[in-house]
Amino acid sequence: MKSDLDALMQARDLDAILVTGPARHNPAMFYFTGNVHLGQADLVKRRGEEPLLFHRAMEREEAASTGLETRDLDAYDFRAFLEQTGGDYLQALVIRYLRVLEDAGVREGRMSVYGRTEVGPAYAVFRALAEELPGLTIVGEGYDSTLMQAMATKDESEVDRIRRMGRITHTVVGYVAEFLATHRVREGQLIQNDGTPLTVGEVKRRINLWLAMEGAENPQGCIFAIGREAAIPHSAGSADAVVRLGEPIIFDLFPCEAGGGYYYDFTRTWCLGHAPDPVQALYDDVRAVYDGVMKGLRAGLACTEAQDLACDLFEARGHPTVRSDPQTTTGFAHFLGHGLGLHVHERPWFGTRATEHDRMDPGVVVTIEPGLYYPDRAMGVRLEDTVWVRPDGEIEVLGEHPLDLVLPMPSG
Amino acid sequence: MKSDLDALMQARDLDAILVTGPARHNPAMFYFTGNVHLGQADLVKRRGEEPLLFHRAMEREEAASTGLETRDLDAYDFRAFLEQTGGDYLQALVIRYLRVLEDAGVREGRMSVYGRTEVGPAYAVFRALAEELPGLTIVGEGYDSTLMQAMATKDESEVDRIRRMGRITHTVVGYVAEFLATHRVREGQLIQNDGTPLTVGEVKRRINLWLAMEGAENPQGCIFAIGREAAIPHSAGSADAVVRLGEPIIFDLFPCEAGGGYYYDFTRTWCLGHAPDPVQALYDDVRAVYDGVMKGLRAGLACTEAQDLACDLFEARGHPTVRSDPQTTTGFAHFLGHGLGLHVHERPWFGTRATEHDRMDPGVVVTIEPGLYYPDRAMGVRLEDTVWVRPDGEIEVLGEHPLDLVLPMPSG
Repeated sequence: MKSDLDALMQARDLDAILVTGPARHNPAMFYFTGNVHLGQADLVKRRGEEPLLFHRAMEREEAASTGLETRDLDAYDFRAFLEQTGGDYLQALVIRYLRVLEDAGVREGRMSVYGRTEVGPAYAVFRALAEELPGLTIVGEGYDSTLMQAMATKDESEVDRIRRMGRITHTVVGYVAEFLATHRVREGQLIQNDGTPLTVGEVKRRINLWLAMEGAENPQGCIFAIGREAAIPHSAGSADAVVRLGEPIIFDLFPCEAGGGYYYDFTRTWCLGHAPDPVQALYDDVRAVYDGVMKGLRAGLACTEAQDLACDLFEARGHPTVRSDPQTTTGFAHFLGHGLGLHVHERPWFGTRATEHDRMDPGVVVTIEPGLYYPDRAMGVRLEDTVWVRPDGEIEVLGEHPLDLVLPMPSG
Repeated sequence: MKSDLDALMQARDLDAILVTGPARHNPAMFYFTGNVHLGQADLVKRRGEEPLLFHRAMEREEAASTGLETRDLDAYDFRAFLEQTGGDYLQALVIRYLRVLEDAGVREGRMSVYGRTEVGPAYAVFRALAEELPGLTIVGEGYDSTLMQAMATKDESEVDRIRRMGRITHTVVGYVAEFLATHRVREGQLIQNDGTPLTVGEVKRRINLWLAMEGAENPQGCIFAIGREAAIPHSAGSADAVVRLGEPIIFDLFPCEAGGGYYYDFTRTWCLGHAPDPVQALYDDVRAVYDGVMKGLRAGLACTEAQDLACDLFEARGHPTVRSDPQTTTGFAHFLGHGLGLHVHERPWFGTRATEHDRMDPGVVVTIEPGLYYPDRAMGVRLEDTVWVRPDGEIEVLGEHPLDLVLPMPSG
């Protein structure tokens, strides 16, 4: 949680952090500012002190609305810095950063840098800064960063926002199910009012519309993959694919709050009208593993132990897994889940990125998403829900939704 | 244009470029891949050769759909790299990059790096790579980068996409105008059917809905700022502000294709029902400058010359400008425009970032957005359209929309 940040910085021997980039669609900045319109800003936090938000003059009211202590970037004479450097924009930026850091009281020690923005200028500027300030070590952390570690556990206000996204997700999934069921069927294909077959592209267009209606967006798209495409774990589904009865549809929806805030992540596998026996058998195995894993989760469990549990259960049913063959593209071909928050994928990790920090600690929000994929048989099944480890150690699914495979087609 | 890239790389003495990050909401990657679902990828292009797209195994079909030559990142044994580095994720990434670059034929010379992704890991990995490969110089370019230079001129297919976004923008602006006009008025406030005043938040909710309906999104939000907030150039407008007659509304809409593709950028200033004389006078000045600048634009003009023309015209009308006072927050307090494409702001630049490359060359798409701001008088006016310098040198506004200040209120 954010309240752990000073202790985490201490543990990593960090004296300061610098967050750069816009506020929106930039989790590190959003974590501090919330949903405001800041096109470009810098935030500096020294250990044990409140953060300072450096903003453009034009965005001063948006900056003030964050409640953070603010400083005007345009109070620095950038034009003079440009003259000083013969018009070299990046060198002028370096000079401004030197002033910003001085005014924030950061001159030495270790400073970690964060933010989702253009890596080219960032690389050049940080390298030059490191040369200008030999006493300051600029640290680029990986997926196991201090900030990601703070973000991995959520306070109640964050869980409320994720839960609200869950309600929106379930509402939109309900709209999709109702929409599909209104179609008539011809030769196994869903047919629209104009007589043409319903396509995945049209389904996705409506999903975007319904998400917007509910105050959400899906910046990373969604997966609505049918038949052969459902057998490829992360195929998004071709827009021109036709929706048919009796073929597995993997519907994976991972929207976030409008403006790039908190995410939710949810998957169901549907067969419209009826399920062929091999798909039903595959579904039954995934469902059994889903139930087994949900029963096996408890506070404090290492995520790699949860992953092992899923592999045990799949292997006992005769499926290859990423444990039995790390390169497998059949069977259980991915990891059991991932943390979820301001990133659709964040700590704790269940797979190769997992460290000893990746545990089901109280406050953690993770997806649980067992799945099976058989591209040669044009079949894939995945079930996914988002769960929270409550402060009392109980595991809570953040929103209930039927797990059924078959979506009845009244007209089919 | 993309076809200029090899020549631009030659001019900057670049042997290769590396683009990293997802495909969506990452202009450098989208420029090569188009709108596909790649969560994390690397693209390497050597000068004079076609790019190579390195993708995750799970996303191989999405990668193949780009038409680029592809390589599977998961064919490298990342698990072994992790063992080799004692579990250090960033060091393992460095080893994989060494292999990727070797397989792409990049071992020495100068390589520029691009991509909108997390700057912390990128900084650490690029620094380590530079140490491992002393013959390879990793270059972080600024806003004047080789890729931005290529992007600054658009081919016809890109202009078609921007023009399509223009049509969508104008359609949604039309919906907003109609929606406002359906309200009744009480004590100068627009009143909804339920008897409560219409707020900016409700207007924005509908804008998002209409954009989604039309296949667009606005990842950076939009500006709908009334009265005092209209006087701050980049205030987005508070959600709880009430829509009133006779106060200037700055409505700045800058949506992009769903998935983070090409943008459009458009602003009108409206007074509902009637315009007070001081607002009308301010509007008349902005409109005169808009007309004067549009008349003065021609192919080959330096953007700084266009900026000077706008300042001449505003100063002749007695307004302070960023030329007469670079720190001004009143009068013409920003630059005349900016390039537009996969970024809402890109080259060519009109302000402090402008270099000799920033010209109205054929193929360029820019916004023209003169504006005046007087916070002390709670007034701001801006007019903005997007224009294209055609191959024949003519200036074309990419979509016509009325410039009128007053939106009549039938019921007001």
